[in-house]
Amino acid sequence: AISRLVCILVFKMKTNMSILVVGAGYVGLATAVFFATKGYATTVVEQNNRIISKLNSGQLHFLEPELQKKLQLVLKRKLLTFCLPEQHVYQRADFVFIAIDSANRQTGKMKLHHFQQLADWFGSSKRNTPLTVILKSTNIIGFAEQFRALLDKTRYGKNIRLVVNPEFLREGYAFQDTAQPWRIIVGADDKRHTAGLLRLYRKIYHPSIPIIVTDCKSAELIKLASNVYLAHRLSFIHEIAEFARQEMLDIESVKNGIGLDPRIGLDYFNPGLGFGGSCLPKDCKLMNSKEMKQTFSFETARTALKINDRLLRNLVAHLKRNLHSLRGKRIALLGLAFKPGVDDYRDSQALKLGYLLVKEGAQVAVYDPYISDISTVKSTRITPYPTINQAIDKTSAVIIGTAHKQFMNLKPSQVAGYVKKKLIYDYHNMLNRSSWEKAGFEII
Amino acid sequence: AISRLVCILVFKMKTNMSILVVGAGYVGLATAVFFATKGYATTVVEQNNRIISKLNSGQLHFLEPELQKKLQLVLKRKLLTFCLPEQHVYQRADFVFIAIDSANRQTGKMKLHHFQQLADWFGSSKRNTPLTVILKSTNIIGFAEQFRALLDKTRYGKNIRLVVNPEFLREGYAFQDTAQPWRIIVGADDKRHTAGLLRLYRKIYHPSIPIIVTDCKSAELIKLASNVYLAHRLSFIHEIAEFARQEMLDIESVKNGIGLDPRIGLDYFNPGLGFGGSCLPKDCKLMNSKEMKQTFSFETARTALKINDRLLRNLVAHLKRNLHSLRGKRIALLGLAFKPGVDDYRDSQALKLGYLLVKEGAQVAVYDPYISDISTVKSTRITPYPTINQAIDKTSAVIIGTAHKQFMNLKPSQVAGYVKKKLIYDYHNMLNRSSWEKAGFEII
Repeated sequence: AISRLVCILVFKMKTNMSILVVGAGYVGLATAVFFATKGYATTVVEQNNRIISKLNSGQLHFLEPELQKKLQLVLKRKLLTFCLPEQHVYQRADFVFIAIDSANRQTGKMKLHHFQQLADWFGSSKRNTPLTVILKSTNIIGFAEQFRALLDKTRYGKNIRLVVNPEFLREGYAFQDTAQPWRIIVGADDKRHTAGLLRLYRKIYHPSIPIIVTDCKSAELIKLASNVYLAHRLSFIHEIAEFARQEMLDIESVKNGIGLDPRIGLDYFNPGLGFGGSCLPKDCKLMNSKEMKQTFSFETARTALKINDRLLRNLVAHLKRNLHSLRGKRIALLGLAFKPGVDDYRDSQALKLGYLLVKEGAQVAVYDPYISDISTVKSTRITPYPTINQAIDKTSAVIIGTAHKQFMNLKPSQVAGYVKKKLIYDYHNMLNRSSWEKAGFEII
Repeated sequence: AISRLVCILVFKMKTNMSILVVGAGYVGLATAVFFATKGYATTVVEQNNRIISKLNSGQLHFLEPELQKKLQLVLKRKLLTFCLPEQHVYQRADFVFIAIDSANRQTGKMKLHHFQQLADWFGSSKRNTPLTVILKSTNIIGFAEQFRALLDKTRYGKNIRLVVNPEFLREGYAFQDTAQPWRIIVGADDKRHTAGLLRLYRKIYHPSIPIIVTDCKSAELIKLASNVYLAHRLSFIHEIAEFARQEMLDIESVKNGIGLDPRIGLDYFNPGLGFGGSCLPKDCKLMNSKEMKQTFSFETARTALKINDRLLRNLVAHLKRNLHSLRGKRIALLGLAFKPGVDDYRDSQALKLGYLLVKEGAQVAVYDPYISDISTVKSTRITPYPTINQAIDKTSAVIIGTAHKQFMNLKPSQVAGYVKKKLIYDYHNMLNRSSWEKAGFEII
């Protein structure tokens, strides 16, 4: 009986499940590697040849320790392959997970031409088995409906099943959050479209993980709203901290006083330079995207972005009052990543601050222990340095950009030996205020 | 040794601790009754003679079951007395807890004349033992500083210790939250002023309850910000529900999909008519009070109020589209209280909705199982009825105002027999949508 069961399992895997993932970013790789660890032969499609060969050698192109380990494991077991996007690859797949960078980070506009091409490829050939296309990327609300229309216009597109199954990965935990998500959202406007995916998920996920089956628009809303909530929560404590700083109050006591109410809580409640990264600011923009058909105004998303911007503008204004002008001044930025312990500086508040300083005529000297290559930074006046001491040398102010734990070891005596002016901005509250003040620093 | 210890304890109580509480509302009574249960002879000062005699007979003038029980207990043990505010009463006290209704609910302005009179009384006589005045009422940020200035102007006021010790009571749990608070905030600009109160609190509170000692302004900020956070959280889910309703999405799935992220959570996350009550809206207004010296704009507080107002305006607009005009129409409002299970309708969204409907020319028929007296309602066109059937009779729409659990038993057949038009607004999602639709109702 057992050998028969094994036969059935092997048979099912081999014949039923051809999984394709489009996009080799955080989401695509976490999804693909997870399926591979569960024994499914998985293919990842990626445009960049350099990234493909890096991945084939078992190296991620970003920092994600657990995912890195699992990638090497599944490569050894030959369950994962990478290839360039070519039409014939799509014709073999039963499940296609779309995990491309779906929206322009600055404008919040959807990259429609990518989706148009995918729709054309999916719908160009006749199939004997059903194809389920799963939107994992974050979209504007109503986008699945638009994509459905693109599919329907193709020759065989009407038979394609379409599911919205948003990802909820925290950076640094991409694999863990894929393998053990807090919840799974499966949205489809035709409930029959979910059957195959639900069967797959029930096999690979623990039964204790809640699966919510809903319509496409609700699934899209859940994804965006979850991130807007987090942005909204962070913007709240940042606004309070901003006021407390201006009034010279003890931010730590204020934060604890508020967060000790268990309905509020102290997790995910640390003030710093604001919220950043590849998701929160973008999703706040997508929530009120002009491309949405509905005209509803999400005030919470607007307010979160407003508070986030004000914080940086106020910091620059404060710095200008302190230094009279920033023209030609060197300013040190310690940390460029959007959160501690990662190497990702996409849409980080530290980088945005860097751009604002450059706009005022400053030279920005960056040190980030996790980041050496800042080639996507769009200013030649933002320069990376390999050590803290080189970054702070001859600067008129030092700003902690990211709460990397390394910066807790900064010593006033070390910094004093290099800087031109003893002025430090520690919005993350990492440093012992009184010891820096004793050493003659102004600490903000 | 034990008898000596008892002697010392009795001695301490009798001689050291004369406790006075100003104001016999939720906060004042919970504070006073709690001290009395701990064995301290406590006096409550109240202006209203009718309330004094009611309290002396062991009856609260609001619904608060646990507090009611404890009140009767301490009255029997003769540890609690009530009296009119007269100057001599203040001269005996060592601790005076100010728990008056400190701000105008509509304008968010502080009731300065009350505080002026208290300052005059406190500062008019010389004392041999220190007097600690504790501000328990919610104030604008910076109010303690203003009150300090009032005290300092009086003859003996400079010796008075001033502490900000905000209350964090949930209605329905006034006694429990006083006896076992999540945290205690003690704010003073002169740390020596906290000594007496901290000694008292360390005696009566369990050592596991965190006490945060800070300055006055931080304590004031913590209080307001905690309530603004809660308003802000509620306004978030209300905004999402508003959109979901307009787009005909399943609000329950959307809410669960978002709240299953443990950083977000599902508690305190139920949509309805918005947030109301004696604290949240008022504190959102106080946060940006024009009486504050600082000009900081708290955007989260503004947004929370904005979303709250929009919801009611949208509901009225929807109703007008449905009924063409509201002029002369009867509308039933089931529930007037600001939250389920209480009899308090101060600043409730249901009442605000009632006023908006009256403004449009409607007659509003109210039924609330917890409220019979609506004498403080400022419109003769809002009428209370003793039964649901009388309230819904001949109405053109039924609106659930409060999520009182009794309304879950509403049956389409019952309602259909009375109403003029089968139209029901259930923003709290209490009713089984499909069974009402089957019975011919439009349910929103």
